[in-house]
Amino acid sequence: MTLLFSDAEVAAQLDAPTAIGATRAALLAAHAGRLVAPPRGSAPLAGGRLVTTAGQLTDEWYGFRTYDTFGHPEAEQVVVLHDARSGRVRAIAVGTEIGSRRTGAIGGVAIDLLARPEASTLGVIGCGGQAWAQVWAAASVRPLREVTVYCRTRARREAFADRVRAELGIPARAVDRPETAVRGRDVVVLATDSPTPVISAADLDPGTHVNTVGFKQRGRAEFGLDLLDRADVLATDSLAQAGAYDPPMLATDPPYADNLRDLAAVLAGAVPGRAAPGEVSVFCSVGLAGTEVFLLDTLAREAAVRL
Amino acid sequence: MTLLFSDAEVAAQLDAPTAIGATRAALLAAHAGRLVAPPRGSAPLAGGRLVTTAGQLTDEWYGFRTYDTFGHPEAEQVVVLHDARSGRVRAIAVGTEIGSRRTGAIGGVAIDLLARPEASTLGVIGCGGQAWAQVWAAASVRPLREVTVYCRTRARREAFADRVRAELGIPARAVDRPETAVRGRDVVVLATDSPTPVISAADLDPGTHVNTVGFKQRGRAEFGLDLLDRADVLATDSLAQAGAYDPPMLATDPPYADNLRDLAAVLAGAVPGRAAPGEVSVFCSVGLAGTEVFLLDTLAREAAVRL
Repeated sequence: MTLLFSDAEVAAQLDAPTAIGATRAALLAAHAGRLVAPPRGSAPLAGGRLVTTAGQLTDEWYGFRTYDTFGHPEAEQVVVLHDARSGRVRAIAVGTEIGSRRTGAIGGVAIDLLARPEASTLGVIGCGGQAWAQVWAAASVRPLREVTVYCRTRARREAFADRVRAELGIPARAVDRPETAVRGRDVVVLATDSPTPVISAADLDPGTHVNTVGFKQRGRAEFGLDLLDRADVLATDSLAQAGAYDPPMLATDPPYADNLRDLAAVLAGAVPGRAAPGEVSVFCSVGLAGTEVFLLDTLAREAAVRL
Repeated sequence: MTLLFSDAEVAAQLDAPTAIGATRAALLAAHAGRLVAPPRGSAPLAGGRLVTTAGQLTDEWYGFRTYDTFGHPEAEQVVVLHDARSGRVRAIAVGTEIGSRRTGAIGGVAIDLLARPEASTLGVIGCGGQAWAQVWAAASVRPLREVTVYCRTRARREAFADRVRAELGIPARAVDRPETAVRGRDVVVLATDSPTPVISAADLDPGTHVNTVGFKQRGRAEFGLDLLDRADVLATDSLAQAGAYDPPMLATDPPYADNLRDLAAVLAGAVPGRAAPGEVSVFCSVGLAGTEVFLLDTLAREAAVRL
């Protein structure tokens, strides 16, 4: 009997603490070599590609997520969880909630590990689902007292601030310039589809932590090298995936590559994180493969308990 | 709202004439260049691989099937159908019925096109699900008056013959030697997991049509070159997929490659099929990618009518 989760069911059942807890477990499993996450595969179709990212928790489960690049605003992704012992399908999720919640949760783990303990203000560039998921996760790892948000469309940034107030109960302001959104903030999230820098590193205060969720490649990045030059701590959730981008990820180019740390290794205590309150830390999110299936496994186990 | 089909629902709703009709439409769409079917992709996991075959009917739908190579007897496959206009998931099938029924249906189209019109006896080597699906489809394109079956385990071949009698209402005999199963037969199906030849071409009567569903590669094939030497007509359901096997498919080696015809082109009348009653025809089934999604689209449209 296959469990089928819609976006509404995922949203109702996967809260931020649960998603972040499962993501921590996924990162630790990856660090221990138990989470197998091969490079993503891609099938060319007319007008777009179908992309598959597979994952496996040794002896527990295997599965995958698919998404496509046709650009339909309502496009749905599919996440599938197989039992490792029988090969049967335990659960399927259809939609985008698991995908954005797991990217949010990875960002939440990064903020929890790398931002200053007393961080309480958050600046966001971007008003889409990925930006939302970052704020949703951040609010569960730091007691936020204000969120500032900028994106190009006034109505969208106002709606985003309204949603932060309504759903997270956090004071929020939409601002009309990107630098206003990030100046003086403890934590900054970049979650845009911009191929060119949306902020200048000079706008960041000492001690700021930055999550970047959008483009981060040579010739196509929502930030410039100035941000990497400014970073005392630079981390990503998969060194292997980071190294496989084409064109290459900026943070895997010299001299930054030597400084790029594995978030899972930081979480496991094998590699240091922030060393001083004044350091700038930057997390480059690549979306560790298999983490979506980890979240679906969590949902499926909780559903089994309820049945 | 995503439709979810289990094996039981597929079995109840996808009869042989429907599956064969949809498969004919798929082959004609492929011939017209409307069915996009890129080479299958594969993600390496510990102990096996996750394989994805994508397909797209231009302007109608796109989707995929996944299966794995862990070898669990109860392993389930997943077939997903997206609407081309919205990117939403219209339907998902979990199990193995769509996969085996589409391979059966492709075999049924091949038999209908290439076997003699009066063919009425069928010999099968193999007793698994793929062998069953071939008989199931063959029975809907020719009025069979007897099926003979051989596989190594007596109990399994007796059960297979019982099932042919019970479910298809066709006289059937389990026999204790492979040559006894195929001698004097109008149509022969090879559907084994044997890496070495299970019959000799000398055992076939003139005018026989053969479907081969199992291994067919250099160094690993359920038939020998004697069968290809004997073939007056040699066809496959995807020249592109046939050419992508590694190790290569026997039928794509010289001198056979020059004689290898595209089943869809034969169906469209662009390439000749059988020219004389005494010719031996051989169909090498590779499983044209996208055909599973074609069948799921058929199921989903019929379900929409019922709702």
